Amino acid sequence: MKGLVIFSLLASISVLGFLQESVHGRPSLMSLPKPRRDDAAVFARWLVSQNSWGVLSTVSRDWGGAPFGNVVSFSDGLPDKGKGIPYFYLTTLDPTASNALKDQRSSLSLSEYNIGTCGKKDPELPTCAKITLVGKLKLIEGTKEAEIARAALFAKHADMKRWPKSHNFQVYKLDIENIFMINWFGGPKPITVEQYLQAKLNKPALTVA
Amino acid sequence: MKGLVIFSLLASISVLGFLQESVHGRPSLMSLPKPRRDDAAVFARWLVSQNSWGVLSTVSRDWGGAPFGNVVSFSDGLPDKGKGIPYFYLTTLDPTASNALKDQRSSLSLSEYNIGTCGKKDPELPTCAKITLVGKLKLIEGTKEAEIARAALFAKHADMKRWPKSHNFQVYKLDIENIFMINWFGGPKPITVEQYLQAKLNKPALTVA
Repeated sequence: MKGLVIFSLLASISVLGFLQESVHGRPSLMSLPKPRRDDAAVFARWLVSQNSWGVLSTVSRDWGGAPFGNVVSFSDGLPDKGKGIPYFYLTTLDPTASNALKDQRSSLSLSEYNIGTCGKKDPELPTCAKITLVGKLKLIEGTKEAEIARAALFAKHADMKRWPKSHNFQVYKLDIENIFMINWFGGPKPITVEQYLQAKLNKPALTVA
Repeated sequence: MKGLVIFSLLASISVLGFLQESVHGRPSLMSLPKPRRDDAAVFARWLVSQNSWGVLSTVSRDWGGAPFGNVVSFSDGLPDKGKGIPYFYLTTLDPTASNALKDQRSSLSLSEYNIGTCGKKDPELPTCAKITLVGKLKLIEGTKEAEIARAALFAKHADMKRWPKSHNFQVYKLDIENIFMINWFGGPKPITVEQYLQAKLNKPALTVA
C-alpha cells in the first residue's frame, strides 16, 4: 500500500512536469522571474527573452500589400542571456522571408500568455502583457552576427539544426525601430529602443510582480 | 492509508485538470477532435474554431506603413459552432482598430501550438499547423451580424462583458479574402474562401489524425 502511495505521488509529480513542458514548449529555459511592471524596458526584455515563438508580420505584395502575419520561432540569445534583438531562421519557400527581401518593414508580436504567467486571464486584457517590436527584417547570413544568432537560435530550438539543407534556411534579424508594449491598465508604456537594448535583465532589482 | 492513496490520486487528477485549463485558457470549450490533415478546409476551420486568441495585423500609418501585429482575442462563433469568420471586440484606444478604420487590409495568424495538440514540436515546424487569414478588418457595430458576433465573443470570453464602457469597445469582423495554412510538409495547402466557409466541422468523417 505504501508503494502505491509513493507511485501515486510520483505520478502526480511527473504529470505536473510533463504538462509544464507542454505549456512552455522549451523546458528548463524559462527561469527569469517576472520583473516589476513599472520597470518597462526590463519588462519588455523579459517578455522577449522568455518567449520562443510569435507572429512575424511583413508586407505581402502578392496580396495587395496586406500585412501578413506568420507563426515563427525566434531567439534573442542564449537562454536567459538574450540581448533583446530577435533572430529568425527562415527560408524563402515561406512568404515571410521573400516578403522581407522586397520590403523590410516588419513587426514581431508576443504575448505573456505563452510564458504561462497570465493564469486564466484573457490575452487581450492589459494585465496579460503583450509586446510588438516594429522595425526592419534583414537578412544577415554570412556576417559575424549571423554566427552569434545561429548559436542563439539552435540553443532554444535544437530541432533547427536538422532542418533540411535543401530549403536554404538563413538567419534574419529584426532591426527594432519602435516598441509597443502593454503590461497594465493605462495604455502602452513608452519605451525607447535605446532603453530597451540597454536594460539589464539579470540585475538584482528584479522581483516577481 | 487507503484514504491517502485516494487523496493522492485525486490530487493527480486535479493537477492535471488545472494545468490543462492553464494551457488552453478556456476550459471545456475545446472539444472537437483534430481533423485529418488532408481535409484542408475542415482542418483550417478547426484551427480557427479551437483557438481563442491570435495576432491581428494591420497597416500602421504612424510607423511608416509598417505591418503592425497585435495580440487580440477573437471568436468565430459559439463554442464548437463556429462559422469560420473571426469577430473581434476592439477599442480605438488600441492602434489596431484605429489602423483598420483608415486601411482595412489585415490578417489574423494562429498556431496549433495554442490548442495543445503539437506536443513539444517547434511551432515553426510544418507538423505544428499554422494559419493566416488575410482580408479586410471591418467595423460592423450596429448591424444584425454584430449581435451574433457579440454573443460569439462573450461565449468564449466572458470577461468582455465587463470591459469598461468608457473605452467604447466595438465589434469588428475579418472579411476573409485569402487563406494561408501549413499543416504538414510540402508547403501551404490550397484552400479557397468558399471551401473554407462551406466546410462542415461536425461531419462524421472527422477523425483524430
